[in-house]
Amino acid sequence: MFFERVAIVGVGLIGGSFSLALKAKGLCRHVVGAGRSAANLALARERGVVDSSVADAAAAVKGADLVLVAAPVAQFENIFLSIAPQLGPECLVMDAGSTKRDVVAAARAALGAKIARFVPAHPIAGAEKSGAAAAGAELFRGRRVVLTPLRENRPQDVQAADDLWAALGARVSRMSPEEHDEVFAAVSHLPHLLAYALVSDLSARANAAQLFGYAAGGFRDFTRIASSHPEMWRDICIANGDRLVKEVDRFSAELGKVRKFLEEKDANGLERLLADARAARERWLKGEYE
Amino acid sequence: MFFERVAIVGVGLIGGSFSLALKAKGLCRHVVGAGRSAANLALARERGVVDSSVADAAAAVKGADLVLVAAPVAQFENIFLSIAPQLGPECLVMDAGSTKRDVVAAARAALGAKIARFVPAHPIAGAEKSGAAAAGAELFRGRRVVLTPLRENRPQDVQAADDLWAALGARVSRMSPEEHDEVFAAVSHLPHLLAYALVSDLSARANAAQLFGYAAGGFRDFTRIASSHPEMWRDICIANGDRLVKEVDRFSAELGKVRKFLEEKDANGLERLLADARAARERWLKGEYE
Repeated sequence: MFFERVAIVGVGLIGGSFSLALKAKGLCRHVVGAGRSAANLALARERGVVDSSVADAAAAVKGADLVLVAAPVAQFENIFLSIAPQLGPECLVMDAGSTKRDVVAAARAALGAKIARFVPAHPIAGAEKSGAAAAGAELFRGRRVVLTPLRENRPQDVQAADDLWAALGARVSRMSPEEHDEVFAAVSHLPHLLAYALVSDLSARANAAQLFGYAAGGFRDFTRIASSHPEMWRDICIANGDRLVKEVDRFSAELGKVRKFLEEKDANGLERLLADARAARERWLKGEYE
Repeated sequence: MFFERVAIVGVGLIGGSFSLALKAKGLCRHVVGAGRSAANLALARERGVVDSSVADAAAAVKGADLVLVAAPVAQFENIFLSIAPQLGPECLVMDAGSTKRDVVAAARAALGAKIARFVPAHPIAGAEKSGAAAAGAELFRGRRVVLTPLRENRPQDVQAADDLWAALGARVSRMSPEEHDEVFAAVSHLPHLLAYALVSDLSARANAAQLFGYAAGGFRDFTRIASSHPEMWRDICIANGDRLVKEVDRFSAELGKVRKFLEEKDANGLERLLADARAARERWLKGEYE
């Protein structure tokens, strides 16, 4: 497993870390980055995150034997359309999108027969920091990567993708794009929306300064993900909107249950819910759900 | 400022840390702890969190010149009733409850004329860890403590409470019990309920193991406060139920706005909300709301 020329479309936290991790493992000769921000690409070159850069994704993938598309997901269709003619027959293509049904649809619409060598991937390694400045070679160590292989894929390409992420320290698993979007709507996209909604609600109030003035450590951790990249999360939420609406409705029903405990001063009912939730979270922290 | 005998009713994270901080600053001669759990009191003695302990709060406060009540707030009325006859005329009494209207009402009902020397206090220093095992002398350094003085208080007693918390490193401020409960419903009690509700919702599903298996760092921070002490949070939520229901309704309205963006695929509207929330949180982190 060695790549002569790797093209990263979108040299942010994930794309940049992927490049640094490949380099640290000696798995590639040259990494070229492409992206919208000249300043970010310049920083990526300066930090040694990539070896060279071009503005244009199509130029970047020419001659590459490995491509990672790691841009906000709403850009994927245009990126796929632009790179499709330049993809060589032996080039393995992956993405790092946080949603999968939309990414797969965009790839099918744009890549033609080259869809066979596109293995969709989602490294679960987001953070509230973004850009090449935040990239690091160890980002994927111990993290999960979900592959959502396509019926068009050759088994050896899926295995190559699996082996590659495993070589970077990740724990790789596989599911369908549909299952992926359902799972991550619940455990990732919904919490992000809730954190953003709380900060949005508080910050719009007349006494916002007072409220934030008394917000403490619990609030800081709860809302950390509300410092995530707005464009990236806009795209994720819109792309997975149907699933996310279902999750919002489920959560609202749960919150309605809590509200009823409060209105009825049902201390026992409320305590049971709190205690069950804490117990579940403790089981999770102990690794009982791994 | 020096106390000969300090009684701590409830030697948990807050009560235990208060004792350790007083000792570290050389502000007291002897600390006696009282509480429901013999095992926790034994641990508190063993760790040097308190110098002695008794099961009974009334016995603990006898002869004390400083009392801190730091139990779950639903116990306050019984504690006040039991200690009232034993409180000396020169004893300063404080609490560490996370709600204030209910605590003040309980104190007024139980303490009689001794209400004059009860200065309600709320140290904003909660954590998901609890018990004497979690106590530390530095817990209050840099943290806020809110006093909600009563019309019955003498100014010099309020000032003494202020000076005492400041001596432990806290940033002390004052507001009315009503204002306190309104502010903390929004920035503390609501986030706790949301975190508990999310974990509760996920853990009750047939595919809970799969969902938790893919939950990552963002989820961990978002739900950290769902590992808080269920009895303590039951009491807080029930005590502040009227305010909290209002907050739940405000939050539900905000979440409804987000849901509409998703349904209408309004990417611009959604991005504006996410970007505004992130900007507000960044201002908070920079200390612009202090």
